[in-house]
Amino acid sequence: MTRIAVNGAAGRMGQTVIETAADRDDLEVVVGFDVEAGEVDGVPVVAEDVAGALAEHGVDVVVDFSIPESTLPLAEACVEAGVGLVVGTTGFSDDGLADLDVVSESVPLLKATNFSRGIQVLQRTVREAVRALDDYDLELMESHHNGKVDAPSGTAKTLLEVVQEERDVEPVYGREGHAPREGDEIGVFARRAGDIRGEHELILAGNDEVLSLSHHAEDRAVFAAGALDAAAWLSGREAGRYEFGAVVDA
Amino acid sequence: MTRIAVNGAAGRMGQTVIETAADRDDLEVVVGFDVEAGEVDGVPVVAEDVAGALAEHGVDVVVDFSIPESTLPLAEACVEAGVGLVVGTTGFSDDGLADLDVVSESVPLLKATNFSRGIQVLQRTVREAVRALDDYDLELMESHHNGKVDAPSGTAKTLLEVVQEERDVEPVYGREGHAPREGDEIGVFARRAGDIRGEHELILAGNDEVLSLSHHAEDRAVFAAGALDAAAWLSGREAGRYEFGAVVDA
Amino acid sequence: MTRIAVNGAAGRMGQTVIETAADRDDLEVVVGFDVEAGEVDGVPVVAEDVAGALAEHGVDVVVDFSIPESTLPLAEACVEAGVGLVVGTTGFSDDGLADLDVVSESVPLLKATNFSRGIQVLQRTVREAVRALDDYDLELMESHHNGKVDAPSGTAKTLLEVVQEERDVEPVYGREGHAPREGDEIGVFARRAGDIRGEHELILAGNDEVLSLSHHAEDRAVFAAGALDAAAWLSGREAGRYEFGAVVDA
Amino acid sequence: MTRIAVNGAAGRMGQTVIETAADRDDLEVVVGFDVEAGEVDGVPVVAEDVAGALAEHGVDVVVDFSIPESTLPLAEACVEAGVGLVVGTTGFSDDGLADLDVVSESVPLLKATNFSRGIQVLQRTVREAVRALDDYDLELMESHHNGKVDAPSGTAKTLLEVVQEERDVEPVYGREGHAPREGDEIGVFARRAGDIRGEHELILAGNDEVLSLSHHAEDRAVFAAGALDAAAWLSGREAGRYEFGAVVDA
Repeated sequence: MTRIAVNGAAGRMGQTVIETAADRDDLEVVVGFDVEAGEVDGVPVVAEDVAGALAEHGVDVVVDFSIPESTLPLAEACVEAGVGLVVGTTGFSDDGLADLDVVSESVPLLKATNFSRGIQVLQRTVREAVRALDDYDLELMESHHNGKVDAPSGTAKTLLEVVQEERDVEPVYGREGHAPREGDEIGVFARRAGDIRGEHELILAGNDEVLSLSHHAEDRAVFAAGALDAAAWLSGREAGRYEFGAVVDA
Repeated sequence: MTRIAVNGAAGRMGQTVIETAADRDDLEVVVGFDVEAGEVDGVPVVAEDVAGALAEHGVDVVVDFSIPESTLPLAEACVEAGVGLVVGTTGFSDDGLADLDVVSESVPLLKATNFSRGIQVLQRTVREAVRALDDYDLELMESHHNGKVDAPSGTAKTLLEVVQEERDVEPVYGREGHAPREGDEIGVFARRAGDIRGEHELILAGNDEVLSLSHHAEDRAVFAAGALDAAAWLSGREAGRYEFGAVVDA
Repeated sequence: MTRIAVNGAAGRMGQTVIETAADRDDLEVVVGFDVEAGEVDGVPVVAEDVAGALAEHGVDVVVDFSIPESTLPLAEACVEAGVGLVVGTTGFSDDGLADLDVVSESVPLLKATNFSRGIQVLQRTVREAVRALDDYDLELMESHHNGKVDAPSGTAKTLLEVVQEERDVEPVYGREGHAPREGDEIGVFARRAGDIRGEHELILAGNDEVLSLSHHAEDRAVFAAGALDAAAWLSGREAGRYEFGAVVDA
Repeated sequence: MTRIAVNGAAGRMGQTVIETAADRDDLEVVVGFDVEAGEVDGVPVVAEDVAGALAEHGVDVVVDFSIPESTLPLAEACVEAGVGLVVGTTGFSDDGLADLDVVSESVPLLKATNFSRGIQVLQRTVREAVRALDDYDLELMESHHNGKVDAPSGTAKTLLEVVQEERDVEPVYGREGHAPREGDEIGVFARRAGDIRGEHELILAGNDEVLSLSHHAEDRAVFAAGALDAAAWLSGREAGRYEFGAVVDA
């Protein structure tokens, strides 16, 4: 049984990870870290001496959903304790990313912007479809709850990158008035409404037909489950940088 | 059997009206008008003396899909010949609209931006839903072929007007970067891709649920059929201004 | 502030009602009832002397998500204590329903199969659309998680009833092989997959167009929220039978 | 420029092929075959001596949308004239299929049940997704116009075959009453309504998420265009049996 620590244990994703882990018998969350000590769903949360706690609780892998300022010292503690690290935190500077590369020379490290298996497969099918229907028009849409302040979503940005690796298209983020479509553009739209958990859709249209590839998250737990899958998969591996795609294919 | 003339007979919609009419036995297209004389699907097209042709062919109602510069002289010919007029042309100035009002004092006139029964019902359900779910977030999306240069579509604008009659919301036509959603905004998005005939969707989201009201046109013929329905309905009525909704409820 | 009791407090819906109520300041859950005494999210749960507990805790309205065998004695306790009752329990026999009618002569009672405001509005728009597009083909589809054993869903059955009040259609629950569509049939389809919270869609198709009216539940909490809305609305009303539609229009 | 003959020239698909070809400059329809001689859109249609007409008009490839009883003698004429054959006709017996195999030893032959590039790519993405999300529930839905008498559609059957090559699932064509979902079943649903040109959707659901892969045909012309692409691609190739997938990848 993999012994897991959660960094950012009191945050929304951290709590969901802890709750989701409670239903699994292949792993156990044994300790949490956050800015204030306490307890989340029966898991002790400590606020200092991370390296010591990793050793004390016999942690195999840390799952991190926090902010870069918290992830980087955590990563150093992982190196010190010889513990693997799953990073779900986003927003790293180039320097921060370089630091994580250094960390991965000492311990196994898996960083992803999205731990959904479905999103992973969506990316693959998007790549395949964009390649095969190489003269079809592309439009990308995502929908999220009304409290999400950035647009488009991180997952939509990743999908756009996948598209751009296959085709030279420029995003337009809205159309109003006289707005003729250029051949090399891709509309990227962000709906914000209610409590929508997260939807992403790419359409490919041409030749009197439309192919639609889409994903709908029913619950934030989907991401927690994937991060836990990644942690279980990472446990015991050699140092190095790993991708979530490998977890999906396992 | 209603005897119909088509103005703009050689245009895309005019041709579709003529083709669609060929399958019906409650009406007949007996003459067309356009800038050049000729023939469309066996229907004679004349380029001058519209009033004379209306009388000669015993026309009951004219269906017009053209441009305002063509509609207004046509309308005068209709008054002269005592013939009803169905106007599908868009883009009138305020003066042009006032001229049509004057015409409707002499002959029956029905003007609509969209002759789809489904769109008409979509508008009604949108009104009802926006009124009942009065604190839900609204987002409007339409999709059309890649050759459509204006955004949003005329039908989307009409739907937005319906929404705004019920609630004080301001449209935003795209979101990018830091874009927190304001409580009184409505996202309005225009996808342009391939040969999409026309889709419109309003979502209402709140309270962990999403209501979606949407319409999909399979073919331009849907609009031609509605215009012909309107013409058959208009035939023999008193002078006045009529709405397409009355045709749907007939 | 409305003081609420929850019957079936330890069940899935009961727990969700209690959790959802914790975020509201117009009402408070003060006591729960279930077969075993205990506590749910800090709310005391009692297993006997329901009438006494209603009086002791000064309950205004009871929200019931249980089974008919539990609802009926509860209803008698409500009558004894002069407390209103919101019933979300389903599966009553005709005798059980008659008993609830008797109860509603003494206390305010609101029974619904679905406490979603969105579903309520879906029903209204379905009625309006079926009436207006009276010659269009209708097809109904619902999707739920793979553990749901009955088909179609209760909400789909209600939608079918709404349709049948407007038009004489017979449901077919699948098509295979030689299956020509009869003019007076309506396809009713039940998808079962994964953890889908609940989707319902009616399409109306004809005349080269499709109108789609659909609803998606993001979370079970939507139904809890609606039941609490109903409880707050019911508090202090006269004895009688009430409909959830009145809550939506309030 | 590829010189094309159309078999079944007066049928719905034959006519659409001829109309669609008129807009292309890489190929030309020079003759049609059908049970009655005549003309379709300016193309001469002959009813006998197919082999002679193939030679006389210098045909490179024949596109066939007819019935097996017409395709097989046509195929022999192709062998005689040394002309390639694109077969869109369906419903062959095993003997008929064997005859086509023999034909392909003498001339290039491409047979497909669906000439849409989008459907081809849909099949590929379905295969990839079913393989990667190997424990997710699958449900397949298609929608067509109300005059389609068989269910499910040929394309849906092909998609089901693709799924079954990857996973051992049994189709169920409807659910009603007590209908618990078995782990190895796949719901296959056929909606029939209005004039829907053709929609196909596979959903994969599990782990609080849903991946949807879907295709929408806007017009029958999509299939004509694909058949013409296949004809242009087939022209000048060696004898043999070819797949439409190769055309998509060209």
